[in-house]
Amino acid sequence: MTEQKLIFTQLVNDALHSEIERLNPGRVFYIADSNTARFVLPQLVDDNANVITILAGDVNKTLESTAKVWKALTDARASRNDLIVNVGGGVVTDLGGFAAATYKRGLRFINIPTTLLAAVDAAVGGKTGVNFSGFKNQVGVFCNADSVIISTVYFSTLTADQVLSGYAEMIKHAMLTGRREFADVLKYNVSQREPGDNDLLLRLLQESVEVKRRIVAADPTEQGLRRALNLGHTVGHAFESLAMKRMAPIPHGFAVAYGLVVEAILSHMLMGFPAETMHQLRAYVSEHYSKFRFTCDDYPELLALMSQDKKNPDPQHISFTLLTDLGDPVTGTIVAEKDIRDALDIYREL
Amino acid sequence: MTEQKLIFTQLVNDALHSEIERLNPGRVFYIADSNTARFVLPQLVDDNANVITILAGDVNKTLESTAKVWKALTDARASRNDLIVNVGGGVVTDLGGFAAATYKRGLRFINIPTTLLAAVDAAVGGKTGVNFSGFKNQVGVFCNADSVIISTVYFSTLTADQVLSGYAEMIKHAMLTGRREFADVLKYNVSQREPGDNDLLLRLLQESVEVKRRIVAADPTEQGLRRALNLGHTVGHAFESLAMKRMAPIPHGFAVAYGLVVEAILSHMLMGFPAETMHQLRAYVSEHYSKFRFTCDDYPELLALMSQDKKNPDPQHISFTLLTDLGDPVTGTIVAEKDIRDALDIYREL
Repeated sequence: MTEQKLIFTQLVNDALHSEIERLNPGRVFYIADSNTARFVLPQLVDDNANVITILAGDVNKTLESTAKVWKALTDARASRNDLIVNVGGGVVTDLGGFAAATYKRGLRFINIPTTLLAAVDAAVGGKTGVNFSGFKNQVGVFCNADSVIISTVYFSTLTADQVLSGYAEMIKHAMLTGRREFADVLKYNVSQREPGDNDLLLRLLQESVEVKRRIVAADPTEQGLRRALNLGHTVGHAFESLAMKRMAPIPHGFAVAYGLVVEAILSHMLMGFPAETMHQLRAYVSEHYSKFRFTCDDYPELLALMSQDKKNPDPQHISFTLLTDLGDPVTGTIVAEKDIRDALDIYREL
Repeated sequence: MTEQKLIFTQLVNDALHSEIERLNPGRVFYIADSNTARFVLPQLVDDNANVITILAGDVNKTLESTAKVWKALTDARASRNDLIVNVGGGVVTDLGGFAAATYKRGLRFINIPTTLLAAVDAAVGGKTGVNFSGFKNQVGVFCNADSVIISTVYFSTLTADQVLSGYAEMIKHAMLTGRREFADVLKYNVSQREPGDNDLLLRLLQESVEVKRRIVAADPTEQGLRRALNLGHTVGHAFESLAMKRMAPIPHGFAVAYGLVVEAILSHMLMGFPAETMHQLRAYVSEHYSKFRFTCDDYPELLALMSQDKKNPDPQHISFTLLTDLGDPVTGTIVAEKDIRDALDIYREL
């Protein structure tokens, strides 16, 4: 898989045009969702551009939507030499990337993520795909974009929850990196963003993406180190699923933020992760994300969800990525149920 | 793209089991069509095997059939560590390869082609895909099988036309290689196969696949030398389309065989290709494939079809792969309409 070119800039238009010039395609097709087609595309292209619009929302990240994209490309006689530009959140970059990677066995494509989460996710790893038969990202391919243009200029239209959701992944990356990065991320007041701090957020985002890029490059096939990226997700997924069953769903990033706190507690209990750092994290998360509410009656269900998590290699044991310190992850740590219960107790009491 | 392991053998069962052992998958899923599920699979697996059956025939090489395969894999909870074994002709290897390459972003797979054409095609190049919206192989990916097990034992159940169709590609490969290979291929009486000549055909097939492998390896992205594989196809596709319009379709391989003769005539006229070799080819093709019938009234239509062929880079000119001699292809040779008409005249008169 060729590496994708990452461009961090607030001048998206300039970057896009120079990338199109570099790639020198026959024609350019833009894939957007119903929102970005209306609010973002007019800033990038004129009325004559070839635009393929899909419906917004994860429920539309389907094979049927992909077939509509393939059909539109076919009807327009798109050729192997043409270029796709995906403009949108994760639904557009995942689905548009999959459509591009499979139309005539692969067109080149550029991603322009318009949400913080898509910027962190789509920037590295080459994961494309759609949901299928009730499973997320069940059908797809690994395929890098030719370039990814990352900017924070579009984030001003995101809801606070959307920004927080993406930011949880940045907290995770910082925890996997080191003391300075962690301090930088916790210094930023993500709930009260100022109009002037776009450039600061772009710099933090660039550092965060660099962390992910290093980890993925060291382990492209997800066998070892890359599992470190699962930090916060073993507990986070269980919280997310429990909230779903209660018919009170929480955003994925919120579940990850809560999961990071519980797993920091576990790391402290079992791996000597510093108590002070654990408390700094907990304070930041409760200030910006509040807290996940549950009782000890929920423990059996939470433990069952953790053991069944698709990234848990053996359902007989629950495996975690834990930290001995900031920047020192230990993947595949099997933790006894009793310790998990203790950590959940501490989380509830803190 | 990792190279696929090619195994030429008449002991398919042994080869399959040792490959499964080598790849050490969680579970194995077999994809077959309604014919191979009935006639071939019972020789390879017992009744407890996980078999996914698609309908036979190119009309079923669709996204809908692929979705059924993805659904069956999903319902069986197939995991990233499982293995797909495709058993069938080109429909099964193309579609099954695409399904495998995209389910959970890629399972490993083995191809066991059961037709001569699929053996020549599926053995090298990693092309997977399905037809879409009226276009052949419009959606797919380049993805190599982990291994391809090639045998001639299944060919005894093929119709004469099916064998001839695959053999045309082998004639083409021999022309791209040299004098000895060409003589070997023309020595074999493809219309009157004897029960004992399975091993001879397997040897010829192995040589033929080796030619294709060398060419593809030298040019994996189809920019230059690989266009040599288009020999016979510029005229062949035009014949095939004309026959379709007349409502009297001919098998693809027959069209290629006729196309090889016309392009050998052109090669003689323009590139000094030896007259004797041209006549040897013409004699073999007319003995086994008969001849394509058309008049000079069909020339404008044939020329239009050649210029619109999807592999013709510029519709203003008609471009061919021609030969200065056996084994010496010259790709991208632009030929004047007058010369093409002359070659068609000669073909009709020969």
